[in-house]
Amino acid sequence: YRRTRSLHGPSPATKFGPKACMLQNPKAVMHIQDPASQRLTWSKPPKSILVIKKIQDHRLLQPFKDLCIFLMEEKDMIVYVEKKVLEDPTIADDESFGPLKKLSTFREGLDDLSDRIDFIICLGGDGTLLYASSLFQGSVPPVMAFHLGSLGFLTPFNFDTYQSQVTQVIEGNAAIILRNRLKVKVIKENWESKVGQEHPVEENGRIVAKHGENDLGKRAVQYQVLNEVVVDRGPSSYLSNVDLFLNGRLITSVQGDGVIVSTPTGSTAYAAAAGASMIHPNVPAIMITPICPHSLSFRPIVVPAGVDLQIMLSPDARNTAWISFDGRKRQEICHGDRINITTSCYPVPSICFRDPVNDWFDSLAECLHWNVRKKQSHLTDVEDY
Amino acid sequence: YRRTRSLHGPSPATKFGPKACMLQNPKAVMHIQDPASQRLTWSKPPKSILVIKKIQDHRLLQPFKDLCIFLMEEKDMIVYVEKKVLEDPTIADDESFGPLKKLSTFREGLDDLSDRIDFIICLGGDGTLLYASSLFQGSVPPVMAFHLGSLGFLTPFNFDTYQSQVTQVIEGNAAIILRNRLKVKVIKENWESKVGQEHPVEENGRIVAKHGENDLGKRAVQYQVLNEVVVDRGPSSYLSNVDLFLNGRLITSVQGDGVIVSTPTGSTAYAAAAGASMIHPNVPAIMITPICPHSLSFRPIVVPAGVDLQIMLSPDARNTAWISFDGRKRQEICHGDRINITTSCYPVPSICFRDPVNDWFDSLAECLHWNVRKKQSHLTDVEDY
Amino acid sequence: YRRTRSLHGPSPATKFGPKACMLQNPKAVMHIQDPASQRLTWSKPPKSILVIKKIQDHRLLQPFKDLCIFLMEEKDMIVYVEKKVLEDPTIADDESFGPLKKLSTFREGLDDLSDRIDFIICLGGDGTLLYASSLFQGSVPPVMAFHLGSLGFLTPFNFDTYQSQVTQVIEGNAAIILRNRLKVKVIKENWESKVGQEHPVEENGRIVAKHGENDLGKRAVQYQVLNEVVVDRGPSSYLSNVDLFLNGRLITSVQGDGVIVSTPTGSTAYAAAAGASMIHPNVPAIMITPICPHSLSFRPIVVPAGVDLQIMLSPDARNTAWISFDGRKRQEICHGDRINITTSCYPVPSICFRDPVNDWFDSLAECLHWNVRKKQSHLTDVEDY
Amino acid sequence: YRRTRSLHGPSPATKFGPKACMLQNPKAVMHIQDPASQRLTWSKPPKSILVIKKIQDHRLLQPFKDLCIFLMEEKDMIVYVEKKVLEDPTIADDESFGPLKKLSTFREGLDDLSDRIDFIICLGGDGTLLYASSLFQGSVPPVMAFHLGSLGFLTPFNFDTYQSQVTQVIEGNAAIILRNRLKVKVIKENWESKVGQEHPVEENGRIVAKHGENDLGKRAVQYQVLNEVVVDRGPSSYLSNVDLFLNGRLITSVQGDGVIVSTPTGSTAYAAAAGASMIHPNVPAIMITPICPHSLSFRPIVVPAGVDLQIMLSPDARNTAWISFDGRKRQEICHGDRINITTSCYPVPSICFRDPVNDWFDSLAECLHWNVRKKQSHLTDVEDY
Repeated sequence: YRRTRSLHGPSPATKFGPKACMLQNPKAVMHIQDPASQRLTWSKPPKSILVIKKIQDHRLLQPFKDLCIFLMEEKDMIVYVEKKVLEDPTIADDESFGPLKKLSTFREGLDDLSDRIDFIICLGGDGTLLYASSLFQGSVPPVMAFHLGSLGFLTPFNFDTYQSQVTQVIEGNAAIILRNRLKVKVIKENWESKVGQEHPVEENGRIVAKHGENDLGKRAVQYQVLNEVVVDRGPSSYLSNVDLFLNGRLITSVQGDGVIVSTPTGSTAYAAAAGASMIHPNVPAIMITPICPHSLSFRPIVVPAGVDLQIMLSPDARNTAWISFDGRKRQEICHGDRINITTSCYPVPSICFRDPVNDWFDSLAECLHWNVRKKQSHLTDVEDY
Repeated sequence: YRRTRSLHGPSPATKFGPKACMLQNPKAVMHIQDPASQRLTWSKPPKSILVIKKIQDHRLLQPFKDLCIFLMEEKDMIVYVEKKVLEDPTIADDESFGPLKKLSTFREGLDDLSDRIDFIICLGGDGTLLYASSLFQGSVPPVMAFHLGSLGFLTPFNFDTYQSQVTQVIEGNAAIILRNRLKVKVIKENWESKVGQEHPVEENGRIVAKHGENDLGKRAVQYQVLNEVVVDRGPSSYLSNVDLFLNGRLITSVQGDGVIVSTPTGSTAYAAAAGASMIHPNVPAIMITPICPHSLSFRPIVVPAGVDLQIMLSPDARNTAWISFDGRKRQEICHGDRINITTSCYPVPSICFRDPVNDWFDSLAECLHWNVRKKQSHLTDVEDY
Repeated sequence: YRRTRSLHGPSPATKFGPKACMLQNPKAVMHIQDPASQRLTWSKPPKSILVIKKIQDHRLLQPFKDLCIFLMEEKDMIVYVEKKVLEDPTIADDESFGPLKKLSTFREGLDDLSDRIDFIICLGGDGTLLYASSLFQGSVPPVMAFHLGSLGFLTPFNFDTYQSQVTQVIEGNAAIILRNRLKVKVIKENWESKVGQEHPVEENGRIVAKHGENDLGKRAVQYQVLNEVVVDRGPSSYLSNVDLFLNGRLITSVQGDGVIVSTPTGSTAYAAAAGASMIHPNVPAIMITPICPHSLSFRPIVVPAGVDLQIMLSPDARNTAWISFDGRKRQEICHGDRINITTSCYPVPSICFRDPVNDWFDSLAECLHWNVRKKQSHLTDVEDY
Repeated sequence: YRRTRSLHGPSPATKFGPKACMLQNPKAVMHIQDPASQRLTWSKPPKSILVIKKIQDHRLLQPFKDLCIFLMEEKDMIVYVEKKVLEDPTIADDESFGPLKKLSTFREGLDDLSDRIDFIICLGGDGTLLYASSLFQGSVPPVMAFHLGSLGFLTPFNFDTYQSQVTQVIEGNAAIILRNRLKVKVIKENWESKVGQEHPVEENGRIVAKHGENDLGKRAVQYQVLNEVVVDRGPSSYLSNVDLFLNGRLITSVQGDGVIVSTPTGSTAYAAAAGASMIHPNVPAIMITPICPHSLSFRPIVVPAGVDLQIMLSPDARNTAWISFDGRKRQEICHGDRINITTSCYPVPSICFRDPVNDWFDSLAECLHWNVRKKQSHLTDVEDY
């Protein structure tokens, strides 16, 4: 007999010795499906599929065509693609690609896909999944991601057997991992509405609070990020100086190139480059990693997923800072602006190739060469003698 | 309005787009009290108190006496202390310490304290709490830990106002943090019972499986650790070579000085010295940190609290390895021995001074000087000019 | 008896066993004054002094005035200051500052100071010395640097006793450390001379090769840096991809935020923030440090001072890169551009407060808090118990 | 035209501006052959060759035999091997190995090889060269090191073409790199001579000072190390506490697992595992690297080759420490003992396969996978999209 796998940890005992116990607080109890057992199901058969293709990669052209035809003709799906994908000359000029006429198109930042897509397939690198995440600022449909050639952290499926793999998922037979996202709200002080900004809808962000004119032009825009939000010095040669608050407490000031607030999914991306430990995406946590900090003792830290973080320029900062969201939407942060960050309740449901554990360790080895060595190679050691 | 604090993260949405959702699996649902709201209560008033004092520190003598007298005379408690504490000449020879006769004593490894202690008070450094944890291999009574002079990660209370602080806790008014422990089972192959080992009770461990003679002398001993279990090269100059399995999969081989498997509580101890990121103790996770690994790419990783880890000597290892538990009980690991590690369901309920977040950041600053700088000091930068 | 201190190392034996020896090659023998014994002397008494003041720091105003008056009136020196220093309103409007009229001024980038300055005094942070270095692209006069309040790596003198300290140096009684600089040549491919660039004299750089029109507009500019030359992704969100050559061999490709090539002096500046080990400035070496590299195994390396480094965009780089010199003169690097780096033969002769060793360790402690701890504070350890 | 390569750096200018210059001090001038041009020559043809073979590696048996026969029969050399190599059953029982009778043998620690060996050939891993170094505590004959299969930092030659390679070297055609060693003197306080220690000759160390009986039994033993000297906590679970002095100044106290003092050659060995930057062996430097230090800000440092280091137990250390020399000769260090370390004037002249630069970078890639990546693999980045 073997106990059921868990990816959360045991429910801890709540009696402590003969007489002490935890005060029951029903309002603060959370009910969580153990991540090890999370599986996808469909309330109705999926019909609308969004296919996202890495752009400017000629090797992807034929797989993309094959996939679209398979989905439309064999699976009778409605396939959405981004309009600019079809404007790519290699596709637009390809007369053999007849089914092109039947594809539905959308334009990023103009057409709203919310509630219109049942299922997403990505083709290419990890960036396709980051892009898919950016298109869905609320609930995200299940995502199945294929790599061509080289395994990615977010693209676990090999394209070779895509037909059977896609069929299985459509039939409702798939393990999923819920990849936490961060909800990032940027509140700009003294924002002036300008001509040409009458539609201040950020491409993928959402304006969550537009205050009246009497409110001195405050504006808040909100983004969901899958990897990380970065606050850095931008094009400036000078350091950024930002203050970091957690649940309202000033926990530290960052002096250096910047700071990365990342999900566990993002811990293997920019945060790893900046020296962080790598966190499995099922751990409910937020990682805070300084970028080239001016203090030798500024080690990355990992805090619980539920905390509220806030970042602001330090009062004595001589320069502005810049923010970006999963590497996109770069914008300046000025004195008085506030960045609020917490875990989103809209994760990205990412379909596993095998399961959350094996997929992750496969990626660590393939993508980061984590502790990969030739058996014989090693540091110089007298033991050789 | 301000939402209730959370130290777990939001319950994620379980509908994904218009048609997909998570398959409900009632058996795998966990019910978790949000760590931010965990408070202590008493089913009956506490009566038996264990007082643990750091040994060989003369500054602690008077506080220890004051505390014991306060507990016995003002609070009418039964106070337990370790026998060897009273054998310390500075106490034994102190004739003024009359109440000494009324203290109850126990001997580590001989007397079982399970179910006899309602409440624990520690006096000294972080080591006192590690020691308290080792005494309770099952359920642990609530622990309140005082430092004298220098704040520790595990000793948040200042002794100056101990009377009011202790009174508050006894009256049931205390926030607690459940510090996860690791359950470590060492299964020795080919263990021969020897003369003098007829009582193979490990001091603080528990013999969990004693197989019959036909079973070739296998023996399993189990320990609960609060900080970490370390497998290293011991006194040997040569490297240790151990294989690390997670949920039955070989995830990597460790070639180097050793490997640390730690709780989040332990992430600020030896793991931090070995280069790990620091994890707040409310994150349900296990940290795996190599010690001086022979591969430049062997970065520490953080995995979900519920996984099953196993460590064994690599088949081609030329040397044995050594294991220790929170820095104690050092013993040799030979070919065929297995070390099983997972999160325990018996955490240490540690009483907070303020709350889990503020206590931790205070400790990071005090104990590790985390990103502490003089405001003016910094790296050389042309911006100075 | 105690052997003379050395900061270079012993002359190694050149006989190896009974019959082997090193082939003598008189052309390749170098004659080096042991850095431990390097002292300043004057061929004629110094007369022209350049005073560099950190700008926009009001605390420096009075010390600056006191110093200038002391040098002019007591020491009968000609004092040079930068013109914009005198345009600072707090000085220009100060009627009490009479001697102002007697100060000689220069404008950065327009007036050439070469061979006109005998001695430099810096007042402020480390940036003043970087600025002084940038003004002298060839031979650098001796530099004496004062901090006010907080010790810097490059500013070892406390201003309190400036009169006696300056007098001692002028009288020729001073230990010096020769801080190596890097000579960096940027060769721009396809550089088009544009209107308004008819005087392509870089402010502090030197045009070392201006090829004829038939030469397709190649242009080479050369800078001397004291801390480091940085090649990074500039304002782009995307990675930089550069190739690094050493003595003509491609040693690695840098994929990440960028790369730092620094002197030992610069090893405690940006390179330290990026994770490098810290190198004493008397070690003849060049340090190569990746910034947030995309490979876990990309550790900083230290190579001998004499090598020739070259950096170019990787042929498949999709973005340009940006270069800066001691944090200044930021400019874009495009495909075909070449950056050549080697150790300069014009070091900065920096006057020591005590000696090269004590000054450096004082700075490590003061500026970087190198291994500074409270005696009682430490990681959690059972030994406490 | 291309300037001569240098691996030392240019001779710096010694005039600083119009009037300052360096005080000439002929006694402190060093004359150094530029490492880039160091080549081997023979005053007489080499006759005595020491062959060192990695033990217990069956793959080396045939190459070892072939090499010995080649040297004796074709080159007419006298070949020395260690006695225990011939006692290895696989060799002793091999009747076909006739020339065995003609081999000269020695016993480590008993027979002195000084001045009897003209040339050394190593066969196996890097450990063979560490062993060769340990045999020659004074002048070291040239060493040529072969790997079988996997390139090492210290074993650059492939065995396949050993005949032509060895011939070239014997004929005097070889580039060499002088690998600095550290001279380590251990001065034991209160050392009592015991029965059986009447010949207190350390196997490879040298007793450099044996004081009289009145001198209370002080004893000093000296070792030359090629990689590093390590002071650590040994078999103890408790931390080591040692004080580190440089030129007589206390520079820091090490609290942690220990400290590594290494040569640049050793920077790619244990020091790299402990987090140090890697230093080319031609840089005249000493590296100091803490092992799992208890302070987040304790970064490795690099100091000039000529300094005098001293290590002692801290006065308040509760435990002893242990020292080892290139991983061997492990011994305890007690209160009062002193460890003096400086650069030796007896380097190991190691024959290059190509040259000091190419050999080193080949080893970094092969042995440490330094920044080796699949071209397509990388961290998650939106640029992929």
